Amino acid sequence: EADGRVLAVPLVSEIQVPGFDNSAMDGYAVRTADTAQPMAQLKVTQRIAAGSRSREVLRAGQAARIFTGAPIPEGADAVVMQEEVQSLPDDRVSIQTVPSIGQCIRRRGEDIALGQLVLEKGCRLGPAELGLAASIGRAELTVVRKPRVALFSTGDELIMPGSMPPSELPTGAIYNSNRFFLSAMLQRAGCEVTDLGIVPDQRQLTIDAMAQAASHHDLILTSGGVSVGEEDHVKPAVQALGELHLWSLAIKPGKPFALGTVRGINQHQAHFIGLPGNPVSSFVTFLLLARPFLLKMQGVQQLMPRAMKLPANFVWARADRRREFLRARRNQQGSLDLFANQSSGVLTSVTWADGLIDLAAGQTIQAGDWVDFIPFSEWL
Amino acid sequence: EADGRVLAVPLVSEIQVPGFDNSAMDGYAVRTADTAQPMAQLKVTQRIAAGSRSREVLRAGQAARIFTGAPIPEGADAVVMQEEVQSLPDDRVSIQTVPSIGQCIRRRGEDIALGQLVLEKGCRLGPAELGLAASIGRAELTVVRKPRVALFSTGDELIMPGSMPPSELPTGAIYNSNRFFLSAMLQRAGCEVTDLGIVPDQRQLTIDAMAQAASHHDLILTSGGVSVGEEDHVKPAVQALGELHLWSLAIKPGKPFALGTVRGINQHQAHFIGLPGNPVSSFVTFLLLARPFLLKMQGVQQLMPRAMKLPANFVWARADRRREFLRARRNQQGSLDLFANQSSGVLTSVTWADGLIDLAAGQTIQAGDWVDFIPFSEWL
Repeated sequence: EADGRVLAVPLVSEIQVPGFDNSAMDGYAVRTADTAQPMAQLKVTQRIAAGSRSREVLRAGQAARIFTGAPIPEGADAVVMQEEVQSLPDDRVSIQTVPSIGQCIRRRGEDIALGQLVLEKGCRLGPAELGLAASIGRAELTVVRKPRVALFSTGDELIMPGSMPPSELPTGAIYNSNRFFLSAMLQRAGCEVTDLGIVPDQRQLTIDAMAQAASHHDLILTSGGVSVGEEDHVKPAVQALGELHLWSLAIKPGKPFALGTVRGINQHQAHFIGLPGNPVSSFVTFLLLARPFLLKMQGVQQLMPRAMKLPANFVWARADRRREFLRARRNQQGSLDLFANQSSGVLTSVTWADGLIDLAAGQTIQAGDWVDFIPFSEWL
Repeated sequence: EADGRVLAVPLVSEIQVPGFDNSAMDGYAVRTADTAQPMAQLKVTQRIAAGSRSREVLRAGQAARIFTGAPIPEGADAVVMQEEVQSLPDDRVSIQTVPSIGQCIRRRGEDIALGQLVLEKGCRLGPAELGLAASIGRAELTVVRKPRVALFSTGDELIMPGSMPPSELPTGAIYNSNRFFLSAMLQRAGCEVTDLGIVPDQRQLTIDAMAQAASHHDLILTSGGVSVGEEDHVKPAVQALGELHLWSLAIKPGKPFALGTVRGINQHQAHFIGLPGNPVSSFVTFLLLARPFLLKMQGVQQLMPRAMKLPANFVWARADRRREFLRARRNQQGSLDLFANQSSGVLTSVTWADGLIDLAAGQTIQAGDWVDFIPFSEWL
């Protein structure tokens, strides 16, 4: 249940791992003093399975049949894998090789020491971290509360899929797509989402909806309504209820991005992030800006995805004054193909692509140039 | 709810996107015949908001106030962004620039054509795909049923975290960590997991548990019990109930990997995958082998993660006869650091690392060599 959650306190081991010297293989525990020459013959005097507890000391001339994970008997100082041992009559074996001291033995505490910090506070828990926590006996972990995010879309042109068949869609109307990918991305970023639907393009209704939402949420996330047009009521609503810290960025897509705080009807203060209404702008700014903000709110240390350098398999001649994020995907040759239509309205560009090229302002790209590429897998 | 699921049928659009010519900006719709010179003065005769429907034709000498996403009025053939327009008295405006035909207009169907295949059968749905489906009006999608996976661990040495405090853990016992990361990874691979706990190291109990599980599951996934030791009962159990197709692979970690089929008490046939018991071997073979198997069962097209070439910041002198998967992570310089302890028992190696180096059999690595690296983000 902790998968995807963020660790609220450092995880320190109360045990050593392994907890006891144990065998790394199925084979025979021996005393290397007995096996200084190949083909040493030993008497098998005990059998130690995983989970059993050896009480018998291994004496000169003796070997112990032993299995992976089973405790090394006192006196033994090496394990020989069974493929290197030949069985003889009368419980005797011939050790074909000359084992070195400590061979095939996992030492007590060699993986994790007592008191060792195994996971830092702010670590985002995934399958490996859950396994590691379990391996030191932790059935419960203290995690950060999920941020409560209120999501709403603005725009009188928006129609909910399912509420009207495509054949009846009037001119001027479009299906609301943003709430679906934003809701999925919020959940993947570890949030609890309240979907407040579509708010009509009216100043007072927008203010009322935001004041309500701010009372019970940590963040209000909107899409649309943050451009400069007089039909954009989100920005004035934020200004009426709190403060707008920024509302325009020199990036493409995504220029109309807004950040601020709003106070709810109960005076609770919530963060506000206003994403652009264009689907691609909304998708890209969520990944670039809203996601690290949400992770930071949870105390995550590693906020930014890792870019890689890959050669471009295309020409990009139009330098832009803004920093651009181009939709591209890796081809079989290990270079990047560009989606033909980089318009911010085309959601097909993000399903076709498998990441974004991060292009500095004023730059063009020649075929073969190495560019910064961030795969969507680093974000989702 | 379809996030992470696999599309069972191709998704074909029943609409054009956009559904009508619309404005890409907040600004003014004009006739370019009127604006062949800069500073053309026009009369604003209508106002078209997003979601509204223009019925009025734009005639010579007229401009329409228009907002992003709003339908272009008949007669207009360009939109001028509001930053390039000056307001004058008497509802007149001066167009500062000379717009080209089609400027700032998104054409009907330019993003998605009627009947266009937008997502292929076997596509794994993520946020972008859900958004795209919504944008063509689809509120429901036909997805593949989740594979039902029965998960169990074997090993008398295993203790469940939480059932016994670290201080009381007897010699020979270890906490079960595999079921936690395997369960999380199965869910991330789109499966419905039945956790059947720990099966004791006894032949008949193992057979009974597998026959029960095979009756109601598509796949039985075990960890442990597939080595060559006489304490390993999983392999004989599979042979008693069905067929073992393979049970050893030339990879490291992960040599004792088993694949087969077993028949349940109701004669239902289930797939069988037996992972090694060592945590790292179990983790790595799940990603390399079980995960693509599970995706293939769901009809996913894209099964394998993408490797990247990165320079090694270490020396690996020990060539192995087996193909090796080394735990490594990217450093600030863009090269790869190696986790010091590559033993298959140390789960800290997979939490420290951020991916695996895929090293061919018999190869060594010199500092600066470019190697194949697969980030965990491609898998999880």
